[in-house]
Amino acid sequence: MKKLLLFLLVPVFGISQIDYKNDSIFIRKAFDIALSEGRAYEDLRNLCKDIGARLTGSAEAEMAVYWGKQKLEGYGFDKVYLQEIPIPHWERGTKEVAWYKTKDGILHKVDILALGGSISTNGVLTGEVILFNTFEELTRVKPAKVKDKIVFLNQPMDEKMISTFSAYGACWPVRGRGTAEAGKLGAKAVIIRSLGLPIDDHPHTGSMNYEGDNKKIPGAALSTKSAEELALALQTDKSIEFILEMDCKRYEGKTSYNVIAEITGKKNPEQIITFGGHLDSWDVGEGAHDDGAGIVHSMEALRILKELNYKPNNTLRCVFFMNEENGNYGGKTYAAWVKEKGENQIAALESDAGGFSPRGFTCDGNENQIKMLQSFAQLLKPYELHKFEKGYGGVDINPLKTYYQDIPLFGLRPDSQRYFDYHHTAADVFENVNKRELELGCGSMAALLYLLDRNL
Amino acid sequence: MKKLLLFLLVPVFGISQIDYKNDSIFIRKAFDIALSEGRAYEDLRNLCKDIGARLTGSAEAEMAVYWGKQKLEGYGFDKVYLQEIPIPHWERGTKEVAWYKTKDGILHKVDILALGGSISTNGVLTGEVILFNTFEELTRVKPAKVKDKIVFLNQPMDEKMISTFSAYGACWPVRGRGTAEAGKLGAKAVIIRSLGLPIDDHPHTGSMNYEGDNKKIPGAALSTKSAEELALALQTDKSIEFILEMDCKRYEGKTSYNVIAEITGKKNPEQIITFGGHLDSWDVGEGAHDDGAGIVHSMEALRILKELNYKPNNTLRCVFFMNEENGNYGGKTYAAWVKEKGENQIAALESDAGGFSPRGFTCDGNENQIKMLQSFAQLLKPYELHKFEKGYGGVDINPLKTYYQDIPLFGLRPDSQRYFDYHHTAADVFENVNKRELELGCGSMAALLYLLDRNL
Repeated sequence: MKKLLLFLLVPVFGISQIDYKNDSIFIRKAFDIALSEGRAYEDLRNLCKDIGARLTGSAEAEMAVYWGKQKLEGYGFDKVYLQEIPIPHWERGTKEVAWYKTKDGILHKVDILALGGSISTNGVLTGEVILFNTFEELTRVKPAKVKDKIVFLNQPMDEKMISTFSAYGACWPVRGRGTAEAGKLGAKAVIIRSLGLPIDDHPHTGSMNYEGDNKKIPGAALSTKSAEELALALQTDKSIEFILEMDCKRYEGKTSYNVIAEITGKKNPEQIITFGGHLDSWDVGEGAHDDGAGIVHSMEALRILKELNYKPNNTLRCVFFMNEENGNYGGKTYAAWVKEKGENQIAALESDAGGFSPRGFTCDGNENQIKMLQSFAQLLKPYELHKFEKGYGGVDINPLKTYYQDIPLFGLRPDSQRYFDYHHTAADVFENVNKRELELGCGSMAALLYLLDRNL
Repeated sequence: MKKLLLFLLVPVFGISQIDYKNDSIFIRKAFDIALSEGRAYEDLRNLCKDIGARLTGSAEAEMAVYWGKQKLEGYGFDKVYLQEIPIPHWERGTKEVAWYKTKDGILHKVDILALGGSISTNGVLTGEVILFNTFEELTRVKPAKVKDKIVFLNQPMDEKMISTFSAYGACWPVRGRGTAEAGKLGAKAVIIRSLGLPIDDHPHTGSMNYEGDNKKIPGAALSTKSAEELALALQTDKSIEFILEMDCKRYEGKTSYNVIAEITGKKNPEQIITFGGHLDSWDVGEGAHDDGAGIVHSMEALRILKELNYKPNNTLRCVFFMNEENGNYGGKTYAAWVKEKGENQIAALESDAGGFSPRGFTCDGNENQIKMLQSFAQLLKPYELHKFEKGYGGVDINPLKTYYQDIPLFGLRPDSQRYFDYHHTAADVFENVNKRELELGCGSMAALLYLLDRNL
């Protein structure tokens, strides 16, 4: 009670709907359910073990759509339905191998994964390796220097950055644009150092784009360990030959679905709070942290609110977005669709940063919207949530900004330290998600949805 | 620069030594070293893999003493020396097995570990099981009810508590006092549900005490899974017989050592800041989180300060305490020894809560000392440290309070969610420590030592 009185002394930035006593009791109950009667961990186990990796266009992605629909129906929300979306379709082939040959004639195997969207090598491709320490170095080189060579982009993520997402962001062009850039300069292929922090054997895949009519060349990621070995070998041996074979392929686009569930608003049913994660994953591992965690965070948050018999003022709409990883057709199509229907979207929230201990939320919004988020800090402090600041919402909800300029977008921010140990690798499996850490994320999502619903 | 100016506007509670600009630059450098040139992870690998579990009195504990001395000497600190301490000596036997027999005559194996300090069963011990859901229930029962029975304490840790240490603390009497209490009542033996959160196969050992001249009986911990199975079986079968065999033994006490390293203070060499963790561990697993992490946190913090050529005002003394787990003779002897020498101990800091992402520090001190800690918050926020509050220091440094009433004791507070997945089990191994999370703890320890040294 003493603590509650203290809350009342905190400046509230003009937000009058905060009722610290009742809100804190409600939030405590939400966390109690998440931690002691939670379903998220077993739901994630199903998604990871019964389905597994689920790249857009794969049979597993379709299984995940029906899994999601069934789960949501099972929890008895007011509405559950599918939204059809167009999707791209790319598949890793059956063969993905690479070696390098040193001047003594010895072959050294490296661990690789084709980058998502890459063309195949059309049989065995060999070439001389030219190393760049950063993407920026590549953009400054003369075409003659790289023509017919295999460009090796060995830019490491900066381990000194406290937020691993910032370190990832700084390296993103290496993967996203490196292949296009090298193709433009006449290279034969691109190999990149994986966007990951530990030095290990797991290559990290992820999306890349070709640009316009430039020559398309194959692109692959080396494990950080293989990248370090190759870079070391190149220091004393300029004649290294790299040998690469991959038979990945892009197919005709087809259709898939976003999976949607709602609890209808009592007071303002036409005002919609969209929240969710993405159902697709890369085609290695099990998409456990990326973004199985976001899927079960969102589903569980809605289940908790229902369990507590909460009647929201606004309509709470949970969306399992398809195709975040290689095209974002789920997010883009959703945003265009709700605009076309003339919906009033008042806020959106995404969980797509893993199932680790939650540390807070970011808000992509204006000053007042960020202040509103910060006014929740005292209520969420008992759950060790402390980050309430300006920042990104999420890839899937981001297109809403195109049509709703003033909509605040929120992102769950779990501890980021282990995220890039697993991201887009064979190691992103259920076993690497901790039950309590996942459950605290569910409680956090339920709490923020409740507070947004009460304060918007 | 803009951020630094903001710092200047923050009320500083009468602490004049904070120089936000230079302090923030120094702390940034400390974290840079921890994250990009860190030695802690490889040092921990050595301790865990080359030595492993190191219960006080074991050959491995002695190996750890010499490992620690050599490491500290290798880092070139001003002084490195050993402090002799008396130690107890208990050993788990070669045999530790248990079953229960249901009325259909079928035997069911359970996973057990003798509690540290338990007597042996002297061959096979069998008895009828009587279940208590809490320690408190046991304290209220009439002796006739438990006489010659095997007391089963099945009190689970409360998963709803956000701090797992609070949940552990609430269950501590089950392990620490349950055996003595049941012995006093005439029971044959005690089995407890492990003090751990996940439902799994790993029993958690830990210390227990016999009281006075009461009858000593054997005590063991069941894995949470075995405890749940046994409790379920007891619901429908009151005739269950429990069979237990353990040949653990207490030996004559002997001597061991605390391992100590110092950087001598420049301005006030006689003022000492003691910090460290404990070198001993339980005799299963590798003592990776408990407390290998605290050992390398402390050693690395001192190494970082030396690397930065920091000349402390006060003497910084790193202590690897022996025997925290079953007697705390390292901590008790150290405190008595420094008092006897007439030393001026001005603060102490301990890391004994695992190698997880650090979230802040607690202070066992008076209001001004806690305010001083809180005045560091803005400087440490960039490293996602946000907890600066009243709380426990640590078992090893706690005896200093006996002799120095006004000394502030600080404890590093890492994220606690995964701690009781591993604590005192075979799963507390190097592989369950994350490199970056460990390194952030080292940076945090270095930063706090620096700030304490500047502000005391």
